[in-house]
Amino acid sequence: MTIAIAYLGPSGTYSEQAAVFYLNWLNKNTTIKANLSPYPSIAQSLQAVDQGKVQLAVVPVENSIEGSVTMTMDALWQLGSLRIQSALIVPIAHVLISCATSLDSIKTVYSHPQALAQCQGWLGQFLPTVKLIPRNSTTEALEGLDQDVTTVAIASNRAAQLYNLPILAININDNPENFTRFWVISQKQTEIADEILSATYSHTSLAFSMPANLPGALVKALQVFANLGINLSRIESRPTKRSLGEYLFFIDVEANADTLQMQSALAELTTYTEILKLFGSYNILPTNSQES
Amino acid sequence: MTIAIAYLGPSGTYSEQAAVFYLNWLNKNTTIKANLSPYPSIAQSLQAVDQGKVQLAVVPVENSIEGSVTMTMDALWQLGSLRIQSALIVPIAHVLISCATSLDSIKTVYSHPQALAQCQGWLGQFLPTVKLIPRNSTTEALEGLDQDVTTVAIASNRAAQLYNLPILAININDNPENFTRFWVISQKQTEIADEILSATYSHTSLAFSMPANLPGALVKALQVFANLGINLSRIESRPTKRSLGEYLFFIDVEANADTLQMQSALAELTTYTEILKLFGSYNILPTNSQES
Repeated sequence: MTIAIAYLGPSGTYSEQAAVFYLNWLNKNTTIKANLSPYPSIAQSLQAVDQGKVQLAVVPVENSIEGSVTMTMDALWQLGSLRIQSALIVPIAHVLISCATSLDSIKTVYSHPQALAQCQGWLGQFLPTVKLIPRNSTTEALEGLDQDVTTVAIASNRAAQLYNLPILAININDNPENFTRFWVISQKQTEIADEILSATYSHTSLAFSMPANLPGALVKALQVFANLGINLSRIESRPTKRSLGEYLFFIDVEANADTLQMQSALAELTTYTEILKLFGSYNILPTNSQES
Repeated sequence: MTIAIAYLGPSGTYSEQAAVFYLNWLNKNTTIKANLSPYPSIAQSLQAVDQGKVQLAVVPVENSIEGSVTMTMDALWQLGSLRIQSALIVPIAHVLISCATSLDSIKTVYSHPQALAQCQGWLGQFLPTVKLIPRNSTTEALEGLDQDVTTVAIASNRAAQLYNLPILAININDNPENFTRFWVISQKQTEIADEILSATYSHTSLAFSMPANLPGALVKALQVFANLGINLSRIESRPTKRSLGEYLFFIDVEANADTLQMQSALAELTTYTEILKLFGSYNILPTNSQES
């Protein structure tokens, strides 16, 4: 079978890099053939899965510097029909792309807001007076660069090569430990799941809302996992969007939802939660090399 | 005395609206005279307080739809010299500003990413094919609007009046319950504090990191407050920026840090935390009317 994989495009984004990695992983480990399909936003990538236009989407979840990608979490909660098939972690290495020959003439920097934020220290030191202009993706930041030598863009080395643009500076991340975690998302019921199924999923993601005005309710919910010795690898809150101060909690735990221990935890958890949504169990794929 | 209050400018932003409210509150309740001082970013507003260039900054903390303003939390943690004097909650009501006479000719929508996100449902329904372009502030989105009738901006009613621009549609928020919480920030040691001091602060904000790889550590930390009957009104995680999967936790509790109960909680909390930073105790100022 041939499936379509949605990602935040256009070509050259870090999301595409993650999607290419997953495509290579499918080629190596399954009989599934896949094509990549760029979408203009993360939300639209996930809606495409929800509506059956594509079978999978590869979307960013969190970055080690800038934190959660809230759009991904909100779409997962709202759509309700989706599950996580896999997680993968991609190293982020930004370069400064420009047709200028030195930093002296630069007046404007374009990039995705997350990339601008991840380089703010470097920009403050080497380009303290430039104007920072947000763009919808690191690739969109490259538009018009070849017509204006007072502008630069922050994107990946791969994007510079794809669009045949010169690199003016490398290693401009403020923190060399810069990684983004991506999730591979499918519909809950899907044929492709069988072939990539595993009995040894290491992680489970879920989210819940809680009855309002219940002091200590969150502690009780987290205590359920602590009592059973299940480790939480991440907890993140998002607004319910109903009222300021009302939250949803997104939790990643280091356990497979199919185990007896987790079944017991989930059953107890529902006594403290209002709405509980399970996004599935999955493994984190090894991404030591982009070619592996 | 006359003090300067920094905010995310230019004139016409919701941050200015919050700063004007606080200025009116100072006029009514203290002898302090204040001027407003626009800054190009939230981080620069807070740095201006840190460096003593201004005495206060009014910065957004969280919105009921889009969640935390991560830049504010990161700057508070990194600068370390700042404290919260007050909180205030401002209703957010977006309007569509344009020199066009109907929606039919519109090709492009400019606004701050948070405002675009807060109107995504309305845009999907009435302007499904337009291009969404992010801007650094809702005010910056107004630039050039009078020269191009195929463009619109999302900003406040007040911004449309300030810049004398026509309103094409009102009530375009997806959710009428749209509020942003702001904090008024000063240096830890400051003369102005005395005059706005209160013995009855209702809230305290703090943040902490935890020793890595300690399962259940967060639960133990939260349990400290639960055991003492202190309610948590907000918990938010941010990356430590050292390594993917390592977090700081920002917590708002409904208690004054000076009470014996809270002193006891904070002392016990330090046994579970690595670094603990206290951002101060404060009240939430009533903002029923912009003039009050």
